[in-house]
Amino acid sequence: MDTLARIERALDKAISTHEIPGAPPRLSAAIRHSVFPGGARIRPQLCIAVARACGDDDPDLSDAAAVALELMHCASLVHDDLPCFDDAATRRGRPSVQAAFGEPLAVLAGDALIVMAFQSLAAAAGQSPLRLAPLLTTIAQGTGMPFGIVAGQAWECEPRVALADYQRAKTGALFAAATAAGAQAAGADPNAWRMLGDRLGEAYQVADDIRDVLSDPEVLGKPIGQDALLGRPSAAHQLGLDGAIRHFEGLVAGAIASIPDCAGAPKLRALVLMESERLVPKAWCEDVARRVAAQRVAA
Amino acid sequence: MDTLARIERALDKAISTHEIPGAPPRLSAAIRHSVFPGGARIRPQLCIAVARACGDDDPDLSDAAAVALELMHCASLVHDDLPCFDDAATRRGRPSVQAAFGEPLAVLAGDALIVMAFQSLAAAAGQSPLRLAPLLTTIAQGTGMPFGIVAGQAWECEPRVALADYQRAKTGALFAAATAAGAQAAGADPNAWRMLGDRLGEAYQVADDIRDVLSDPEVLGKPIGQDALLGRPSAAHQLGLDGAIRHFEGLVAGAIASIPDCAGAPKLRALVLMESERLVPKAWCEDVARRVAAQRVAA
Repeated sequence: MDTLARIERALDKAISTHEIPGAPPRLSAAIRHSVFPGGARIRPQLCIAVARACGDDDPDLSDAAAVALELMHCASLVHDDLPCFDDAATRRGRPSVQAAFGEPLAVLAGDALIVMAFQSLAAAAGQSPLRLAPLLTTIAQGTGMPFGIVAGQAWECEPRVALADYQRAKTGALFAAATAAGAQAAGADPNAWRMLGDRLGEAYQVADDIRDVLSDPEVLGKPIGQDALLGRPSAAHQLGLDGAIRHFEGLVAGAIASIPDCAGAPKLRALVLMESERLVPKAWCEDVARRVAAQRVAA
Repeated sequence: MDTLARIERALDKAISTHEIPGAPPRLSAAIRHSVFPGGARIRPQLCIAVARACGDDDPDLSDAAAVALELMHCASLVHDDLPCFDDAATRRGRPSVQAAFGEPLAVLAGDALIVMAFQSLAAAAGQSPLRLAPLLTTIAQGTGMPFGIVAGQAWECEPRVALADYQRAKTGALFAAATAAGAQAAGADPNAWRMLGDRLGEAYQVADDIRDVLSDPEVLGKPIGQDALLGRPSAAHQLGLDGAIRHFEGLVAGAIASIPDCAGAPKLRALVLMESERLVPKAWCEDVARRVAAQRVAA
């Protein structure tokens, strides 16, 4: 089965399990709205791709790991969109959860998604019960304190923050968890796969900073220029736009170079390249390079 | 070791693990503020008491289950105090997390506590790895969708709700999880212990409704009359004060009667009675009964 179809099916199964009579219907609806339709599903794709590269001998568990990662990501988006953070009215081109269901249900949907993420792992651990604790720990480390995405978001509430620390936690942590979890779900050593996740995560955050400055709001589905507006640390502001693009390209090259030699390597390399083009199209990079060169000639 | 001291030590260990250099310091402080000093720690006490009644052959795992339950409870308090729910300035007689640290850190502290709860379980599963999945599932069911405390809170956002469903989820679910988890942590069958948790949980919620009407704000550490103010379902409003007190007494008696015959039973009965007196002192019940009798004579 196609990876994306596999992910959508596993997500739908995880969510449906809780959509039963007696559940509060508006929270059920808010949870579904948080997860479907999805974005690029890049974290679960990475997880499944690594699991496949490692043999994928327990596909239910790889699916559960992919689901847990995506539910954590969705929870973080729902909470990031709250009035006390981004106060976003839209997400993925349609109303955010808080806009569609109100702030209380947005808080609760995020909470429920975090719980559901771990519950999905436990529900799938029947065949390989000894893999549950390390897998859960990996996903918790990517999510919580001290270095997960929740910690990353919390750096926005600190008076001082190093850009690299912030980005590593805010985005990188869940990418690193995605590659490590894919290996662990397949019973393989996660350490060989962490660097791929680390670099891709950093690349993703740098891409977000670049897109925040460059892109059309209709393309991204959220209002632009939020980082500057909210005074958030940004690679594009710190390194300049062309510096940020060069940094992004270096990170993608590093991610590709870190992929261990294995049967699944070509597919993984292709996934990274495709994702890199989706995030920061070559056409944009060339356009920025052209403008920088023109400025140099003029100066 | 005294149960309460054991719980405080385990909680402190769980929190300290994440208080390391590189963690966002204000979120660390908000998390500690959420958990210390605690309330009655009734859920972890119940969990440890049941684990002891079942032999407590893996105390690290019972501790972790107790910690997970208390962290979930603290997370729910921190999120319940947010402006979009109770907007509480105080909790346990001092500033609430949102009042002390602001709304963004209150959202993130709750999120981090939920993650930490599951992470604590995984970290303690080394001796009895096969107990992890069922234990995690029990605690997730008490917390998330469709019947856990998050679902319970969500019923406040629904246009229609049955009082019993609301209370079972909002409070009862985590009590039922506490007794079941105590048994599972000790490798015992959780089903014999669920009724104790169910009844105590309902008793606790009814007690809360009674206290909301009756008590002095200095005693409870939070403003009174919130239920009426916020239009929340309440046993005290639905059954009248004396009806609610009789209901409470019946639930406590049922909880005590449900305790399975075992070596730890006398200790558990004593814990339930002590907690019942703490929640709704006999003196209050007698005072209300006296007033009701006087009204009947006057009528």
